[in-house]
Amino acid sequence: MKKDDFGVWEGEKTVELPTQADAGIYYIGRIHTPWKERKECPKNARESDAVCVVELDQRWREALKDVETCSHLILLYWMDRSPRDLVLQVPGHYGVQRGTFALRSPARPNPVAMSVVRLLRVDGNRLSVVGLDCLDGTPLVDIKPYFASTDSVADAVVGWHRKRDQQA
Amino acid sequence: MKKDDFGVWEGEKTVELPTQADAGIYYIGRIHTPWKERKECPKNARESDAVCVVELDQRWREALKDVETCSHLILLYWMDRSPRDLVLQVPGHYGVQRGTFALRSPARPNPVAMSVVRLLRVDGNRLSVVGLDCLDGTPLVDIKPYFASTDSVADAVVGWHRKRDQQA
Repeated sequence: MKKDDFGVWEGEKTVELPTQADAGIYYIGRIHTPWKERKECPKNARESDAVCVVELDQRWREALKDVETCSHLILLYWMDRSPRDLVLQVPGHYGVQRGTFALRSPARPNPVAMSVVRLLRVDGNRLSVVGLDCLDGTPLVDIKPYFASTDSVADAVVGWHRKRDQQA
Repeated sequence: MKKDDFGVWEGEKTVELPTQADAGIYYIGRIHTPWKERKECPKNARESDAVCVVELDQRWREALKDVETCSHLILLYWMDRSPRDLVLQVPGHYGVQRGTFALRSPARPNPVAMSVVRLLRVDGNRLSVVGLDCLDGTPLVDIKPYFASTDSVADAVVGWHRKRDQQA
């Protein structure tokens, strides 16, 4: 497989991006992880027990009230180094063309990643968590409580992934 | 309870917002639901079996390849009618002050909502799903496959909510 002149892999496809944004994101903090380059990041967040630290800007600190009562949180963060124009991608570890919305790749129209993390503790404006796989310094977008009643679906299936598992 | 001159409820607190955004969101489609006003929306997405339709902009249509193999999806959408400056809130149905990040309220610094939905079918650029509680016309931000291995935590606890349940 080789890259063409536009830095897109064979089998990948881009579209023209809209000329302007429709809404604005505030970075509300930064995520500190052990990983300085993408190749160092775990392939899957469950592969790593690394404790990461979410540092919230002081402006928002009071909004953490009661967060310490949550065992798990949803973190949204901004994958600020990702291209946004890919509609078809060929993830390196699979080598098969997939649609962007069937993947968790950071390359997507709005590079907002979602991770479920286990909360270890809250110290002022710093949250220690387990379950991230992102680069050190990644901008934070949101923190939400994880409700098992609406967010947990133990029997959910990603068909293209299951088929691969069966073949593997 | 009464509103003061700034439209904030007693017990609620706002902060000054940053002077500019750090990144831009593209609306990539719209969500069609039966609910035209906030008071009509279900309190909890699991309360409703309503089939909602996610209409993706044609620009991104090819990115839906393989999405039909997913039983469940994560939808991110933009709660474009919500205030963004609240750090402490008093949700009407509880009447207790909580931090914004301990709540799933649409009022938050970045009003990106996250819902787990069951996918019924894909017809071209339209996805029929169950599990939403948002207003008709809500702007879509992202579609992701739901992986039970990383996204499902059946025993997660939101302590402030559990305590309330025990008292109720």
